[in-house]
Amino acid sequence: MRLSQFHLNTEKETPAEAEIVSHKLMLKAGMIRKLAAGLYTWSPLGLRVLRKVENIVREEMNRAGAVEMLMPTIQPRELWEETGRWEKFGGQLLKIKDRKEADYCYAPTAEEVVTDFARFELASYKQLPVNLYQIQTKFRDEIRPRFGVMRAREFLMKDAYSFHLDDASLQTEYRNMYDTYSRIFARLGLKFRAVFADTGAIGGSASHEFHVLADSGEDAIAFSDGSDYAANVELAEALAPGERPAATETLRKIDTPIQKTCEEVAALMGIPLQRTVKSVAIMGEDAEGKPQFALALVRGDHSVNEIKLSKSAGMAEYRLATEAEIRESLNASPGFLGPISATESIRVIADRSVASMADFVVGANEDGFHIAGVNWGRDLPEPEVADIRSVVEGDPSPDGKGTLGIARGIEVGHVFALGNKYSEAMDCTVLDAQGKPVNPLMGCYGIGVSRIVAAAIEQNHDDAGIRWPDAMAPWRVAVCVINPKNNPDVAAAAETLYQNLQAAGVDAVLDDRGLRPGAMFADIELIGIPHRVVVSERGVAAGTFEYRHRETSESENLDIDALNARIRS
Amino acid sequence: MRLSQFHLNTEKETPAEAEIVSHKLMLKAGMIRKLAAGLYTWSPLGLRVLRKVENIVREEMNRAGAVEMLMPTIQPRELWEETGRWEKFGGQLLKIKDRKEADYCYAPTAEEVVTDFARFELASYKQLPVNLYQIQTKFRDEIRPRFGVMRAREFLMKDAYSFHLDDASLQTEYRNMYDTYSRIFARLGLKFRAVFADTGAIGGSASHEFHVLADSGEDAIAFSDGSDYAANVELAEALAPGERPAATETLRKIDTPIQKTCEEVAALMGIPLQRTVKSVAIMGEDAEGKPQFALALVRGDHSVNEIKLSKSAGMAEYRLATEAEIRESLNASPGFLGPISATESIRVIADRSVASMADFVVGANEDGFHIAGVNWGRDLPEPEVADIRSVVEGDPSPDGKGTLGIARGIEVGHVFALGNKYSEAMDCTVLDAQGKPVNPLMGCYGIGVSRIVAAAIEQNHDDAGIRWPDAMAPWRVAVCVINPKNNPDVAAAAETLYQNLQAAGVDAVLDDRGLRPGAMFADIELIGIPHRVVVSERGVAAGTFEYRHRETSESENLDIDALNARIRS
Repeated sequence: MRLSQFHLNTEKETPAEAEIVSHKLMLKAGMIRKLAAGLYTWSPLGLRVLRKVENIVREEMNRAGAVEMLMPTIQPRELWEETGRWEKFGGQLLKIKDRKEADYCYAPTAEEVVTDFARFELASYKQLPVNLYQIQTKFRDEIRPRFGVMRAREFLMKDAYSFHLDDASLQTEYRNMYDTYSRIFARLGLKFRAVFADTGAIGGSASHEFHVLADSGEDAIAFSDGSDYAANVELAEALAPGERPAATETLRKIDTPIQKTCEEVAALMGIPLQRTVKSVAIMGEDAEGKPQFALALVRGDHSVNEIKLSKSAGMAEYRLATEAEIRESLNASPGFLGPISATESIRVIADRSVASMADFVVGANEDGFHIAGVNWGRDLPEPEVADIRSVVEGDPSPDGKGTLGIARGIEVGHVFALGNKYSEAMDCTVLDAQGKPVNPLMGCYGIGVSRIVAAAIEQNHDDAGIRWPDAMAPWRVAVCVINPKNNPDVAAAAETLYQNLQAAGVDAVLDDRGLRPGAMFADIELIGIPHRVVVSERGVAAGTFEYRHRETSESENLDIDALNARIRS
Repeated sequence: MRLSQFHLNTEKETPAEAEIVSHKLMLKAGMIRKLAAGLYTWSPLGLRVLRKVENIVREEMNRAGAVEMLMPTIQPRELWEETGRWEKFGGQLLKIKDRKEADYCYAPTAEEVVTDFARFELASYKQLPVNLYQIQTKFRDEIRPRFGVMRAREFLMKDAYSFHLDDASLQTEYRNMYDTYSRIFARLGLKFRAVFADTGAIGGSASHEFHVLADSGEDAIAFSDGSDYAANVELAEALAPGERPAATETLRKIDTPIQKTCEEVAALMGIPLQRTVKSVAIMGEDAEGKPQFALALVRGDHSVNEIKLSKSAGMAEYRLATEAEIRESLNASPGFLGPISATESIRVIADRSVASMADFVVGANEDGFHIAGVNWGRDLPEPEVADIRSVVEGDPSPDGKGTLGIARGIEVGHVFALGNKYSEAMDCTVLDAQGKPVNPLMGCYGIGVSRIVAAAIEQNHDDAGIRWPDAMAPWRVAVCVINPKNNPDVAAAAETLYQNLQAAGVDAVLDDRGLRPGAMFADIELIGIPHRVVVSERGVAAGTFEYRHRETSESENLDIDALNARIRS
């Protein structure tokens, strides 16, 4: 491609409306233009990147044995009624009436349509397993579309659906897709993690999310440095520490007139924060379903994990207690609460790490005071113990291998073992080897193709612009010509280099727009081309090209062989 | 691809719901499945064909210098209001309300969105000309969707839009697109015609339709055997014949008691149909806009062309006259009408060929009688002359080169020179060389990608199924293995052949499903694979392969070299 014949339209100013760096850079580079809320036009430059992602996804899906098809974007209400999702899907489902007042929706996903296809197409177990996928536009009517294509309403998604006679076959394909996704993100050149996920609303038995790691990611991920364990911080198990040490201190009351937080108390006492215990007052239900006051205890440097706590008995819909409820149960103000109750025996749920502590500090249930040297069994009863905290950096990995780190991630893929949820609801059956109709088990596997483009930029950028991995770059190599109009030799040398690169299968672009070097280089850096080659009068005279990789700040003068070696490496 | 790992699902019965052959064969071959009225899922087999078409369209558009982009399928009402098409587009525009009650439509075409993009992106004449295209799903809410993907509601379309500073540039690109379309349909292996078209509702100055020729086509096309002239029959000019001969007969009344049509009168008189004249009674308007009775005359073997007739003065909204109106003006019944009026002088519009006739036969305006030996100037005044008939097979081509034939066609492409209709309505301007803002001139160029698939089948099929041109076939070559399970040598030979074809870049499929030969061959014929190679025990023993082309009924036993030569030719 010659840039003079391409529609490249970068902007000098950073767009004000964009909140995150990928949105800013995609606008500035002219990759996308906003049409309306959550609707974006992909410019020629943006589409080149989108297609690179799409093609890698397609190649790897095909390699994995999945078979591509194409379902309509507009789907009839009747199918969505069969699974109950016409109502249950909620406001994200864009509902449409046609000219005959019949109800349709714009597909946000395609379980219903593929299951309808399958119940027509699949008759016998001999046709299984099969994995059908499409790369097709989707629409989710986000209540607050934002961040450009990161959370757009219309987007490009790869969605795959597999059908199986038995669970062993489903698990095999689930693993196959897990491995395929790993290959896809590795080929794209992205740092990513496969994260064990809650199966949530979509149901099913197993689920992993694939996250592109980026500081700006919405989700916190805990991952091991000693294995491929990774999980959403919300879900990662915090292992119990070792044995509880023996008590060495005596119980004593500490004057803490204005010290309400663990940090303040630890600072006042000159002890590590890890010696303090935070008491969070909550309201759950007792065995009879009546409101029950309780304290959830975590170490001073930990925080309560709501999802985990809600799994304790009676806590499914717990809430924080009000000041009045606290005063009624403990006769104290928040900031001075603790598990040693003067008035009555209250429910205490201690995190595993709290249960392993000795000689710790808690609130005294008396305003202005804490109690130090507290020990389980001696000063108060043994507590109810559960894993109720979020893991933190440095925790041991739950699989026993290595230590956890925390990273932020952007979800770009998801694999689910669905089971027979959809095949049963929609009466999709195949005959098994005995001639008996059975509902096939299903898996579903999604990749947000357009979202990957934004996520990659979140992970790979600097002040000058985007830093594409080679596989995603609109072009791998830019050949920049200095002042071609006045230097026919330079123009010819650049043209020859460009032609030779093309002939060798290198995805190259010739910047023949005749811009001044500063403006040209700024564009090439902004749009993130990995390899830049400058063809100048001085270079042509010396028989060299000025080469610079986007990741380095220094350029080198290379002869053609060295240049080729560098570009093709 | 191995068919055992592909989801092929042909049907034995011909589907009852399909009215045309392409719809029947696409269902029978399992290329598409109906989801709802006008909505079709493309199976893996169907999608392979669709992608072949899409890729050829893309390659040729890129070669022509057009630049690909991607616009959303969902578009905001505001843009469509700017051009007035929110109302004017009519019921085919699928209107949608989002969760915030904002109005959108599903794009049936994208002039508004691309012009909105252009008014943001294009600032200077230096950025022109540019041709931006996309291959994207469209929706038109047809009142009566039918014929499968031939007239579906959701379909895949390539739509391109070019922007120009002046008309010379627009005409150059128009010609470039015309040539590109010709290359595309030639590469697809289809018989087609570029047809001069009425610019119609979309406006603009020049327009050609591209039709795939097929007996089942909706449109009749006149084309020259001596040039590339082609036009819709409705629009093709009928040239005036040579000089009018001298009168040789006397005027005489003929007794035609029950002969009302020209055919009947000619038969009775024993003269050629070409000697008779048909008088069609119509109501137009006179110069003051009042209803005016008139006769439109065409030769007995011709028919009135409504579009042409409507271009005569006062005939823009003409209609056929009622029997009462006829009786009032001519005092006769239909079947016996003619231009020699006993009562008053009425308006007569004669087709060019009628104006060149002598000694002809017309109705007598008296029930039961005709008049023969009629001559212009002698027996009645010289008429108003116009081209008001449709051309017929054998007419001279309007460009003076060759003779016209008539074929039926299916419209699959359309090129328009739009002018400034959209750029003006939407206030899209660029600065010209003098720094003055001007509305760029636009062209638009559409191809119905999914429709091409159906049209190709209409053109290429037989009783056994589809006969794909090589370029559109799901696979060019099928390697069919006979009884592979019991013949490891045969299976190995087929596998080797398949691998070698793949390695040589031949798009081949291995039919390793283990079907009986009859069922296997029927499938391969039905789905239209051009080249079939059978690998059998006998062939392996003899060192030959049984080769048959889909177009022939005989197979040949070829050794590997001859086979390769045949397949690659």
